[in-house]
Amino acid sequence: MKTLLFHLWLAHAWCANPGTFDDQAQPPPPAEEGRVESYREVVQRILKTSLREGQAYSRLARLCEVAPHRLSGSPGAEKAIQWMKQEMESAGFENVRLESCQVPHWVRGSVEELVALGEDGKPLGVSLPILALGGSVPTAEAGLVAEVLEVKSWEELEARKDEVPGRIVFYNRPMEQGHFSTFRAYGGAVDQRSRGAIEAAKLGGVAAVVRSMSTRLDDFPHTGSMAYDDDVERIPGAAVSTLGADRLSRLLATGKPVKLRLKLSCEWFEEKESFNVIGELVGREHPEQVVVVGGHFDAWDVGHGAHDDGGGCIQSFEVVRLLSSLDLKPRRTIRAVMFMNEENGVRGGRAYHHQHFEEMDQHVMALESDRGSFVPRGFTSDANPEAMAVLQEIVGLMEEAGIHLMNPGYGGVDISPMRANGVVTVGLLPDSQRYFDLHHSARDTIDQVSPREINLGAGAMAALCYVVADLPETLRRNVVDEE
Amino acid sequence: MKTLLFHLWLAHAWCANPGTFDDQAQPPPPAEEGRVESYREVVQRILKTSLREGQAYSRLARLCEVAPHRLSGSPGAEKAIQWMKQEMESAGFENVRLESCQVPHWVRGSVEELVALGEDGKPLGVSLPILALGGSVPTAEAGLVAEVLEVKSWEELEARKDEVPGRIVFYNRPMEQGHFSTFRAYGGAVDQRSRGAIEAAKLGGVAAVVRSMSTRLDDFPHTGSMAYDDDVERIPGAAVSTLGADRLSRLLATGKPVKLRLKLSCEWFEEKESFNVIGELVGREHPEQVVVVGGHFDAWDVGHGAHDDGGGCIQSFEVVRLLSSLDLKPRRTIRAVMFMNEENGVRGGRAYHHQHFEEMDQHVMALESDRGSFVPRGFTSDANPEAMAVLQEIVGLMEEAGIHLMNPGYGGVDISPMRANGVVTVGLLPDSQRYFDLHHSARDTIDQVSPREINLGAGAMAALCYVVADLPETLRRNVVDEE
Repeated sequence: MKTLLFHLWLAHAWCANPGTFDDQAQPPPPAEEGRVESYREVVQRILKTSLREGQAYSRLARLCEVAPHRLSGSPGAEKAIQWMKQEMESAGFENVRLESCQVPHWVRGSVEELVALGEDGKPLGVSLPILALGGSVPTAEAGLVAEVLEVKSWEELEARKDEVPGRIVFYNRPMEQGHFSTFRAYGGAVDQRSRGAIEAAKLGGVAAVVRSMSTRLDDFPHTGSMAYDDDVERIPGAAVSTLGADRLSRLLATGKPVKLRLKLSCEWFEEKESFNVIGELVGREHPEQVVVVGGHFDAWDVGHGAHDDGGGCIQSFEVVRLLSSLDLKPRRTIRAVMFMNEENGVRGGRAYHHQHFEEMDQHVMALESDRGSFVPRGFTSDANPEAMAVLQEIVGLMEEAGIHLMNPGYGGVDISPMRANGVVTVGLLPDSQRYFDLHHSARDTIDQVSPREINLGAGAMAALCYVVADLPETLRRNVVDEE
Repeated sequence: MKTLLFHLWLAHAWCANPGTFDDQAQPPPPAEEGRVESYREVVQRILKTSLREGQAYSRLARLCEVAPHRLSGSPGAEKAIQWMKQEMESAGFENVRLESCQVPHWVRGSVEELVALGEDGKPLGVSLPILALGGSVPTAEAGLVAEVLEVKSWEELEARKDEVPGRIVFYNRPMEQGHFSTFRAYGGAVDQRSRGAIEAAKLGGVAAVVRSMSTRLDDFPHTGSMAYDDDVERIPGAAVSTLGADRLSRLLATGKPVKLRLKLSCEWFEEKESFNVIGELVGREHPEQVVVVGGHFDAWDVGHGAHDDGGGCIQSFEVVRLLSSLDLKPRRTIRAVMFMNEENGVRGGRAYHHQHFEEMDQHVMALESDRGSFVPRGFTSDANPEAMAVLQEIVGLMEEAGIHLMNPGYGGVDISPMRANGVVTVGLLPDSQRYFDLHHSARDTIDQVSPREINLGAGAMAALCYVVADLPETLRRNVVDEE
């Protein structure tokens, strides 16, 4: 018994040390002052401190309590802005300020209903949970009743265009689960949501119902932006849950005549003034040179925007707070920006670009976190080869923490206007497997966030910003094509 | 407006294709028959199929319904064994069978209570949620009342050994959050749970209360095995939640006299017969050569053992099912083994080794999944350099899917007896950030599992097993030191 238990204990102790990331640590080679390699120790310190004492999770939890609904123009967005300004001031950020932007103001109504009706006009009792798509026009109060046409591709819509007039078009092409990156799967399906109402209306359709952009089979519908075209009639658009879409599809497959009744009471209002919230850690040597780090502070009006993008905003806040708490004051300024209105207008990102246009030449890099607060895998960037090599060397310092990618790719929607001025943009790349389970749905709440994951992501962002803001040599700007 | 919306749509479409893993895909170079590189296409097919049509999540959900509590010797474990045998048979596995092993039989009682008492002997109203540690002796029915000594290290225990007699020792050293691998943090703290009761009893202590091994601050206590020593009195052991540990610590810091009343009604019974469950995909050319893939089918009796280790078992099942569904019959046999009793005895792993001892020379590799069903990062292995090079080349084929590590390290507890015979062991290495939030606690339930993550892990295991089982050349065995 004694021997058995001793062996058991040994086995457990052994199991507890299974040669994971930490074991890949290398003793640091001698570092030359001013080279990326000389930042190895400080990068490690930032990452470990973010895991030990990071506040990203607790501050995000607070945001989700204070202002869970933050769609542009809403009272929740206003409240969040004021709260964030106070948080920055309390944490000792420098140059804390609000910068104005005009935002669209669309409000979801209390009525959102999709009902399948039989030949006798009575409900068939099939559950079809929906959300209006962001920006949709409402239906008449009594709703809109029409037959339904299911299509899985634009080709199918074109081929069956004679059947469209007077009908609701039901776009039911699922996200392709075989892609390793769920962003790629999203990119391959979201055109149905973006253009569905336009293309249906062009052919005489009366509404668009879209299968939710989701990687889960469940009954949470996922909203998101939809587009209209000034030359085409505006018809209502809604997203149905993935399980609802499957139910509707099975119902249609029976061949019996089915009509849908759609009711939406959403509404458009006048544009309003809103704000980007900004705070800084001013550089010790080149305060005029700026590294921007941000996320978008607005969120869809279901769930709490915990991952999209409360988390990215709070991580950006944490970059400044964490570096300050470690007394790390880089050569250049790090500016945290909470951009307003990414979801339905990108007005905050454009306003920032416009208001800081003269300063663009002094913008060294812009980093955005807007792919969820899951465990960080690395970053993507549009950097030129010389800057990319520097960025890759920096990420190389994080490999021990499981952060190793600096892939060619996109930075982020809010920072993208700065690309026109040659600013290198970078996006945090968290693991994407869970993101579209909850994106734009009621499931995007704090309980889906892991404290260690969001804190580690914030640490990776802080480390990257710090090294770029502190390196003696300025990151090489991108060359912009002039046409 | 039209322009704005078009730009908005463009920005979203752009964002949806942010240069993530898929973009790293390289066109396959011409492959030489029989080389690892020639398996690139099939590895991709296995991984993508696991994401598209994988059944690991749905089958695990079913297991958590059918037999949520599966501690060795329990009725739940029995039920799970019979269910798994049927599942294997229904899915067309070959050579499905149960193999006997004797298991310890410890049962948690209905009474588990830790109460802080003031000078007057009355409860202070401080919430201290506990679980008996696995294997603990009970207290007397009226409970055990004693003063408490908090220590954070073995050195502190030694230094204060005069204070131990008659007291409850409260081990309150937290897991070190600064480690990137939470397994490392666990390894640095779990000695308190394993040896706490022994070391306290040696010095005259009357019970051990241990801060839960957890990366979360919450009120879920985490159980786990504890050891006794035949030469030392057996005193009760319990784990208190991390928040409870903080409360107790603050209470003690006030300096006021505090006693604890501990009640545990757990009980030891006679050993019972139980079983490993085994099913195969028989090799087409060398059916006698075996690649073992498994997890442990027992689980602690709180939560549902979804991640620990229901998920690893179901992933092992999925290896055989997935390959069969793709008509991939490798040269050698792949044998899925659901090992019984990892948590408190490793009897299943030993019984397998004993019963198949003559066959050990024909065991090519053993793979275990027992670190949670989170997104896979790669594997760890104790392989010799030559075999390691082959394994690393195989993992190289999965890089597109974010699976790239083949680190030197441990394989798994259940397969570790086979190491004595030179069998190369490998462990799946999922991301570890969330694992110890829920490990051995009531939170280890199906809602903490992501369908895509568990399915991708199963795909990675299937791909690795397939290539190793199909390569013309057999993986080189480890050299075993003979002493």
